[in-house]
Parts: sequence; structure tokens; C-alpha cells
Amino acid sequence: MAKDKKTLKILSDVNQAFIEPFPNSKKIYVSGSQEGVNVPMREITLTDTIGDLAEKNDPIHVYDTSGVYTDPNVVIDFQKGLKPIREKWIENRGDTERLNDFSSEFSNQRLNDKSLDDLRFEHINKPRKAKEGKNVTQMHYAKKGIITPEMEYIAIRENCRWQEYKDQIGQHQGESFGASIPDVITPEFVRDEVARGRAIIPNNINHPETEPMIVGRNFLVKINGNIGNSALGSSIDEEVDKMVWGIRWGADTIMDLSTGKNIHETREWIIRNSPVPIGTVPIYQALEKVNGIAEDLTWEIFKDTIIEQAEQGVDYFTIHAGVRLKYVPLTAKRVTGIVSRGGSIMAKWCLAHHKENFLYTHFEEICEIMKAYDVTFSLGDGLRPGSIADANDEAQYGELETLGELTKIAWKHDVQTFIEGPGHVPMHMIKDNMEKQLRECGEAPFYTLGPLTTDIAPGYDHITSAIGAAQIGWYGTAMLCYVTPKEHLGLPNKDDVKQGIIAYKIAAHAADLAKGHPGAQIRDNALSKARFEFRWEDQFNLALDPDTARAYHDETLPKQAAKTAHFCSMCGPKFCSMKITQEIKNLDGQQINELKAIELEMDKKSQEFINNDSEIYLKQKRA
Amino acid sequence: MAKDKKTLKILSDVNQAFIEPFPNSKKIYVSGSQEGVNVPMREITLTDTIGDLAEKNDPIHVYDTSGVYTDPNVVIDFQKGLKPIREKWIENRGDTERLNDFSSEFSNQRLNDKSLDDLRFEHINKPRKAKEGKNVTQMHYAKKGIITPEMEYIAIRENCRWQEYKDQIGQHQGESFGASIPDVITPEFVRDEVARGRAIIPNNINHPETEPMIVGRNFLVKINGNIGNSALGSSIDEEVDKMVWGIRWGADTIMDLSTGKNIHETREWIIRNSPVPIGTVPIYQALEKVNGIAEDLTWEIFKDTIIEQAEQGVDYFTIHAGVRLKYVPLTAKRVTGIVSRGGSIMAKWCLAHHKENFLYTHFEEICEIMKAYDVTFSLGDGLRPGSIADANDEAQYGELETLGELTKIAWKHDVQTFIEGPGHVPMHMIKDNMEKQLRECGEAPFYTLGPLTTDIAPGYDHITSAIGAAQIGWYGTAMLCYVTPKEHLGLPNKDDVKQGIIAYKIAAHAADLAKGHPGAQIRDNALSKARFEFRWEDQFNLALDPDTARAYHDETLPKQAAKTAHFCSMCGPKFCSMKITQEIKNLDGQQINELKAIELEMDKKSQEFINNDSEIYLKQKRA
Repeated sequence: MAKDKKTLKILSDVNQAFIEPFPNSKKIYVSGSQEGVNVPMREITLTDTIGDLAEKNDPIHVYDTSGVYTDPNVVIDFQKGLKPIREKWIENRGDTERLNDFSSEFSNQRLNDKSLDDLRFEHINKPRKAKEGKNVTQMHYAKKGIITPEMEYIAIRENCRWQEYKDQIGQHQGESFGASIPDVITPEFVRDEVARGRAIIPNNINHPETEPMIVGRNFLVKINGNIGNSALGSSIDEEVDKMVWGIRWGADTIMDLSTGKNIHETREWIIRNSPVPIGTVPIYQALEKVNGIAEDLTWEIFKDTIIEQAEQGVDYFTIHAGVRLKYVPLTAKRVTGIVSRGGSIMAKWCLAHHKENFLYTHFEEICEIMKAYDVTFSLGDGLRPGSIADANDEAQYGELETLGELTKIAWKHDVQTFIEGPGHVPMHMIKDNMEKQLRECGEAPFYTLGPLTTDIAPGYDHITSAIGAAQIGWYGTAMLCYVTPKEHLGLPNKDDVKQGIIAYKIAAHAADLAKGHPGAQIRDNALSKARFEFRWEDQFNLALDPDTARAYHDETLPKQAAKTAHFCSMCGPKFCSMKITQEIKNLDGQQINELKAIELEMDKKSQEFINNDSEIYLKQKRA
Repeated sequence: MAKDKKTLKILSDVNQAFIEPFPNSKKIYVSGSQEGVNVPMREITLTDTIGDLAEKNDPIHVYDTSGVYTDPNVVIDFQKGLKPIREKWIENRGDTERLNDFSSEFSNQRLNDKSLDDLRFEHINKPRKAKEGKNVTQMHYAKKGIITPEMEYIAIRENCRWQEYKDQIGQHQGESFGASIPDVITPEFVRDEVARGRAIIPNNINHPETEPMIVGRNFLVKINGNIGNSALGSSIDEEVDKMVWGIRWGADTIMDLSTGKNIHETREWIIRNSPVPIGTVPIYQALEKVNGIAEDLTWEIFKDTIIEQAEQGVDYFTIHAGVRLKYVPLTAKRVTGIVSRGGSIMAKWCLAHHKENFLYTHFEEICEIMKAYDVTFSLGDGLRPGSIADANDEAQYGELETLGELTKIAWKHDVQTFIEGPGHVPMHMIKDNMEKQLRECGEAPFYTLGPLTTDIAPGYDHITSAIGAAQIGWYGTAMLCYVTPKEHLGLPNKDDVKQGIIAYKIAAHAADLAKGHPGAQIRDNALSKARFEFRWEDQFNLALDPDTARAYHDETLPKQAAKTAHFCSMCGPKFCSMKITQEIKNLDGQQINELKAIELEMDKKSQEFINNDSEIYLKQKRA
């Protein structure tokens, strides 16, 4: 039955700018040993070096989060959603079943609401759930020694064919502060890291469209982009747009933080069209169900909400189970109290009822639900500092200790778990926070918002926080939650999303380089070589954002000829520093020997400079 | 004689956006004990806190680099230039004299060139120079135990009245890695730091318009903004515009890196209108004088150029005297060879002549010139790494050792000296570079370009480098040279200048916070308090860029009413995390005791969770 979905322009009108392949890039797929393991990468083709140092430059392969949106062989149809590439793997494991109906009351209510027909995603599948008594988490398989197709996929993806460059391109050793990054990421290594809880694979069995990815300190540092509508505006179209836009620029996961209208339907559209894991904060939706009155929340409403979302396919839930009643009064002396939305909802509830946080008291029941769908815990830091003044205080650290305790409970259930972190922290206090997290939470992956390293730059908090994010990523954080320029001020639009993503790709990559992640330097080296050799197009194409690099260059030197010219826009054609060094590279052995002779003579003279103080003062007197 | 300067629109048309005082801010002047010491600060007035926690919020004083441009009591006239506030101090010292003519051949030639009448600054003073045998550097006075008015000015400026907030607002202690930051900056401390070479005051006696400032690791971290035309474009107007724009947003010094037309005249306009120190790279202009042919450079041409610039009032010179012949071949194996323009000019010269760098061999003669005008050495890092691959290599470190040697020679002449640094350096190698600089150069201030922490983000290098700049500032760098989004791609326009400045103000301030610089946290605390209390206007006004903060907020909530509303644009009016914490702040003693009782009960239960593994697995089996 064809429906008139005129409220959703996105259904027919895919923005070309979103799906255009990157310049000189093509999508390749690297196959694994298990069926259906075809890992996408972006291959960037380079031009040859010309002149005296002529050589062929091999293509570069980069990690690709953009899904089939940048694959010209795939027809994008938002109405149908993406192909469920993991479906068969999940089915083959034989430990799940399709339910006849949704288990959530709310889900059924929305599904039967005719007034929503116009905006509902059309091809909603019945939900899949673990069979009675089964545990379907990747951690459960990992502990049993099973290497799932997801794990093999991830191993190929993380390596990104870097071994093929090994002899060719040098790399600094790095300092990883006790991480255990191997030279080659094997499927067995992936399994082992997941089994011991040091990494998570956020892959709900109801989100088979995902291209598997991993979050852990011994893997590439990942980034998350937040989207979501609010009571103040935005539509389903815009949110799906932001998701596709975000993954184009490099978001490894997307959190849908919607708090406005039609949260359930918005989420369905996002999940069905997202090749990256989707995270949510279920308490936001639960609060909407009680009309925004925190004290009216109940465990039953919350439970129905997580089942609703688990059956839609949300891959990880932020759960603020660490906001214990006893920590709440500790925030009273803070400059900025509780700034986490989820944290303050729970604090409000606790205070109103004089009861312990129901997420804490029902934590094991939540675990039971999580493991039936393989939803990963993102244990929320509801008491994170909202200002430099409140960094690393007893409320924050107390909660972190509780999150460590909860991590161990989740692990007993084989539920994958990572931990959320701050917030606002001055640089010199970041490392202490990281170390405490590793200690308290048994190296469960840390997932931090920034941190922002100063409070004084609203409008530029993608920068204040990229500074902190790069550092905490270096120290061991596994995933960085982006901050956009609109942080503290308003809702990010598409351009803000891009600014946030790029700032965080920079932070994550700077961290990979500093940790000495194998292969991380390949792209830097290739870009710098291109830059040095005036291969302008290659420089743009290797950039995180080729469009902006090209546009900035064209502002000063718009002519096409300037892109092949052997000079750059700073110095102009008459003199160029890079041109001169190319001459130096051409020096032969005899020329270098001649230079050495001169050097010897000069060093004698220099020694005189230093020894002969009197001569200098003599001169001064003469002057 | 009135001239028709129609080529220079700037002369009559001062852009109002450049001189508008910041919102709710006024310029105040704090007087010292010595005559004429009136130190400008920006005072930001705040509104009162209302409601349960009602209180008055004292105004905040922030360091102000914008000169009289933001003083509504001063009429700006670019044709006349700024008031020479230091003139009397210089005169009173009695160790200088006004020359009858410029000492530089080139200066006289330009002055007598009628074709330049239209673009020449009108009120050119005769130059001032040290009397025969006198040394007029701040370092010379400092070593003699003299506290100059400049030093007292700086002490007041650095304190920025923070002592007045001391009891009121807390601050983290910081980690300064062996810096010696005192609780109060006294004039004597300033003198002592300058005497021992750990700080510099870039103040040419021919630039009496400057508002004195200091660069040293025990003072606030400073930032520099680069401007300058090139063969490919830009006019005098645009460059003066960029200078005024740059200091408005916080540039502590400006470097004029012009390589295009009318370098001499452009510089005169900039200096006469600049309240901040101006730096240059004299070899750029010298190269223009020999038509861009590096091998045609001579010591004589260079010498005339530095005298020309010293008599115009340039406050510091980048001198690439460390690019020794012996280091040049070391760059051959690099990925990006020599990327410093000055470095490659000297390398080219050395190679063409098979001779040692004439800046090195004539270093003492340069010192003689520097001390006659109090020009500060900025010893250039001509061999800085231009890519991650080349970081901290033997060419770079070899040159740094030579710069250490030259620092000691300069100090024997009482010539103030600071040292330029990289470049491109991955995060984990930044500290080593900083430590080597401190060791080799006897703690002479370090002045770094970034460093950029990855090569892969052309178009966003203000961010890649702000990450490195914040870190190296924290480790001990005294001044950070900004990088704009156009780095590697093109010439920065006005907006790029602003983006670069703000990114670097963030980096410098983040470093001050991490070092625990006294008073650094005052602005953060005030802004966060305003944010928490929904004093939107105060939040904007305390921001580094009030205009952008306000504009972003207005995008989502344009109505004036929203700026006084007790909710923010992320959550909307129905639920707000900050609102809830205000309730927590209102808890009384009895309420808190009640919470504690609940807590005790829960902790018992939590202990059961942890101890009773069997129970958990029991449950799992039942499920």
C-alpha cells in the first residue's frame, strides 16, 4: 500500500551532497573468512610524484563510517532502510527468535495509532529477542571463546590494510600509558578484549543494518555525534539528515537525544537508515511519557521504555544508575550543581520520593533486558562537572566508584559496558580522572564528553573540548563524544554537526598518533608528502574535509593552474621554501663532504665566541 | 600640507565594529607609582543573582590587549597614530638621542621617493637610538637593578586585580612543571625575571606607542597573531585592519610578515597604530630587496634592513641564525624538508655560497644593533618540522642547541631573547621538545607555532594546533603563535584572523588554568556561575567572543525574553537540569539527614549485590 508521506521530504529526496563519493576516492570491500564479512574502506587514489624524485604513490585506505551512502553502486532509499547485513549471522547463531508482537505496551500503542501513519517508517519488522534462558551478547560469545563474524569484521576494519604500508612508511613509537595495542588486530584479539570487558561491540540484534565497530582503548579512538530534536524544534527529516551527514564526516556512533515530538517514530527512521550503532538516553523518553514531571517516573514506565527501544534496535543505552541518593547533597556546594539532564532527572526523583535511584535498585533487572537484545550499557555520569570549578570533586568521583561497582555486576551478566565521563576539566586534572576510571571500572572503555578545558568560550566549545578530548583519548579514553560550537547555547544545525565531527576526528586521530596506534601515521605521511611535492589535489583529497581544504585554497588562488603550480599561496611564485628543500634533497655525497669541511672551521670559531667573554665585552666598550 | 590619500580608505573610515566597546564592558585604567603608569583593563559588569540565592555579583576585570581602540573617550585617527605613552619614560632615562636622519640607506630612499607620498604615513618621527656606548635594553636595566615604568606597568597588568577576588572564588592548584609563578606579580619580580632572561619585554624605543607586556613562563601565556601582505594580494588598509581586529580579540603581539608591495610603508602604518609589540622577519624584506634571489643576499643588505626596521620601531626580530650549514644536509631525509621560509632562504644562501650562515657569523654585530634600540631576538627555528614524521629530529634539535648557544651570547650583550619552536609534533613528543628548549636555552621564553598535532586536517589547523598549543603552553611555553584555518592553503582574511585568535586565546587560557596561574579561574567561575543562574547576558559578556555566543543563542531562541528565561535552549522550558540543582541547593540539614538514613540501608543491599555472585547466576538460570 503506497502512502502519502508528504510530511517527510527525505523519503523521496536524497540530498546529493550527502551521498556524493569523496573526490578521487572509491569504496572498496575487504572480505573475511566468514560468510558475509565484507568490510568497507575508502581508498584514496594519489597522483604520481614528478620531477627528480619521480615515483608512484600507492593509494591510501582510510576507515570509513559513511556506510553505503558513499557507494555509488547502492541505490539509497530511506523508505526501505538499509540492507540488514548482520541478519544472517544473528539467525545462524540460533539463540534468538522473532516475536509475534512488540513486548512494549508503548510500542504497540504507537503502532496502532492511525494519526501517525503519515510519519511512521513503513517496513517495521517484528522484534527479535533471545530465546528463553539465552544470553546473546557479544561478550557472552567472547567469554565462550566464539569468534563471531562481527569480531572478524572489526579486526579487518581496525587494521585498515595498514600492514601493506609497513616497510614503506615510518611512524613514531608513541606513548600509550599502559594500553596493550598489538601490531596486528586479529579476530582473536578482538574476542579477547571483549571477553575481558576492555572493549565493547555495540550491536543490538534488532539493528542488523550496522557495520560492526568496536570501542576499546586498544583500538582506534572513536567519536560519537549527538543528534535529536527538542521541544523547541526540528523534524524527523532533519534528524535523519544529521545522522547521514554526521557519519559522512566520521561519526562512529550516533546518539539520538530527542526530547521533542514523535521520539519513537524519529528513532525508527534513524535506526533503519543507520549503518553505525545508535545510542539513546531512555530516561529522556520516559520523562516525556510522564509529561516532563520527574517525580511521576516509575520503574515500570522506564522498563517499558527500554524494552521499546531495545526492540527497535538501539545499540547502547545511557543509564544513570550511579546517581545515588547519597551523592546528591554533595552537589550543593558546586558552582554548577548537576548539569547532566539524566542526572538531574534522577536526582529530582530521588529527592521527591526520598528513595534510592530506581535505576540502581533495579540494575539487575535492567541487565536481564540488556542481554536479551545485546544492548550495551553506557553507564551515565549524571554528576559530571559542568564547570572547571567542579572538576574531579567528590560527587563526580563518588559516582564513578558506583559505576565501577555496577560494571562488575553487568559483567557477571555478560552485558557489555562502557562508562561515561566529563564534562569540564582543566588539563592538569584530566589524567587523574582517566586513571581513576581505569582503576574503578576494571578498564571498561571510557567514553567522555570532551572534556572542556575552560568555561570561557561559549560558541567555540568544539575547540575548548577538542583540546581535552585529544588528551584524554591519548591517556586511554576509547570514544569521544563530540561537542558542537552550539554547546551551552542552542541546538546544533547541520553545519554545527560537521564542525563538531571534524574537531573530534582531529582529537581522536591526534590521540591515535600519540598512542602509537599502528598505521595511524600513514595518512599524515601521505598528506605531508603530497604537500611537500605540491600535489595539491592529493593534499585536499587526503584531508579530513577535502571540500573545505579546496575551497580555502581557491579563495586565494582560484585558478586551476595554481593547483599544479610548484609554489603555494603563502609565499607566491617568486620564492618558496618547499622548492628550496627539494634542491637540498638533490645534494650528492661530494657536495655534502664539502659542507662538512666548512662546518669544522666554523665550530672552532663558535667555540671562541663562547670561551672568550672578554672579547665580547671588549667590543662592547669599543662600540 | 594636506595630502590626498584616497588609496587608503582606512585613513578616514574607521570601521565601527573594530572600536565598539564590548557589551557591558568599560575600559578602566589602574595607576602605578611611577608617572604615566596607567594600565588598561576591561571591566565587565554583571547583573545580580535573583531568587533564593540572591546576591550581588562583582564586576570582573580581564586583560585587555585592544588598546585605546575600545576606549570611547579616545578619538581614533589612523593618520596621526597612537599617543606615544612611553616617550617620556624613554626620554627620562637619558641614554638615548634623536638622530637627525635615518641610519638606513633604504629608509632614506623610500622617504625621498615622491611616488610613495600617497601611501606614506604622514607624521614620521626621526629615529631614536642609544647614545654612544649605551645599552638601552630592559634586560640591561633589569640587571642593574632598575625597575622601569614598563616593569611596574606589566606587574599591574599581569595581576589584573585578581587579588581582590581571592577569598571569594576558589581555584585549582595546577601543575606548572617547575615554573616559579608567584602569588602576586610585583615589579621586582618582573625585573628579576627579565634580568635572568626568563622573560622579555618587547619594547623598541622607537615604538613608544606600546602598552608594555611581558613574555615569560611565569606570566600569563601570551599569543601572537600574524598578518602581512604577499605578492598575491592585500593592501595597507587590509593589514592595518587585521592588526586592529587581531588585538580586539586578544592578540598580545602582532607579527607583520609582509612579503609583497610597499613593505616599508605598510609597516610604518602598522607600528604607528599598534599598542602591542610588532615583530617581523627581516630576511623577508631583505629578500625582496634582492628580487627574491636568496643567493644575492648579503650581510650588508641584511644589516641595513634591521637598522631600517629597528628605527621604525619593530619590537622583535625573528633571526634564523641557527640554520647552520652543517644542519642543512640533515633535512634531506625528511618527509617535508625545510618548511620555514626564513630557514630555507638561509639554507639556500649557505648552499649557493658554500659558506656558513651570515646571521650566525655576524651574530655579535646584530647584538650591537639590537641593544641600541632594544629590539628583542626571536631566534627563529628555521629547521622546524613541517610534518608529524619530522618532529624532534636531529636537524630540529641540532638547531635548538645552536639557539641555546646564541641565547647565551645575546645575554652577554644584555639583549632580550626568546626562542621559536615548532611546527608539527604529535602529542607525546611535545613535552620532550619543551624540556630540551628549557635546558638548552637556560629558560629563555619559548615561542611556538602550535604545534600541530596531526597533518591530516588542512582547513582546520587552528584546531589541530590549538590542541598542541594548549599542551606546550601548560608545559612552559610563554607565547603561542596562532595558526589560522587557512594555514597551508591561503592567506588569512579578517574572519580567519579572528578564528585563529580565539582558538589561541582558548589554548593560552587552558594553559594558564592548568599551570594554576593565580586568578586564572576567576573568569571561568564567573561565567559558569552566570550560566548556572541563567544570567544569559552575563554569560555572553564574559565569553571570549560575546558576539558569537549571543548570535548562536539567538538562532535557537531569538526572543529577548528567552535571555532572562530560567531554562536553556537545549532542554526547553518543560524540564531543565540546572533548575533542578537549584532545588538541591535549597536542602536544609534535616532533609540531608533523612537522605543519609536511606543511604545506609541501600549500602547494605549493595554489598549483597557484590558478595553474592551465586544469587546473580541463580537468577540468570531462572530467567
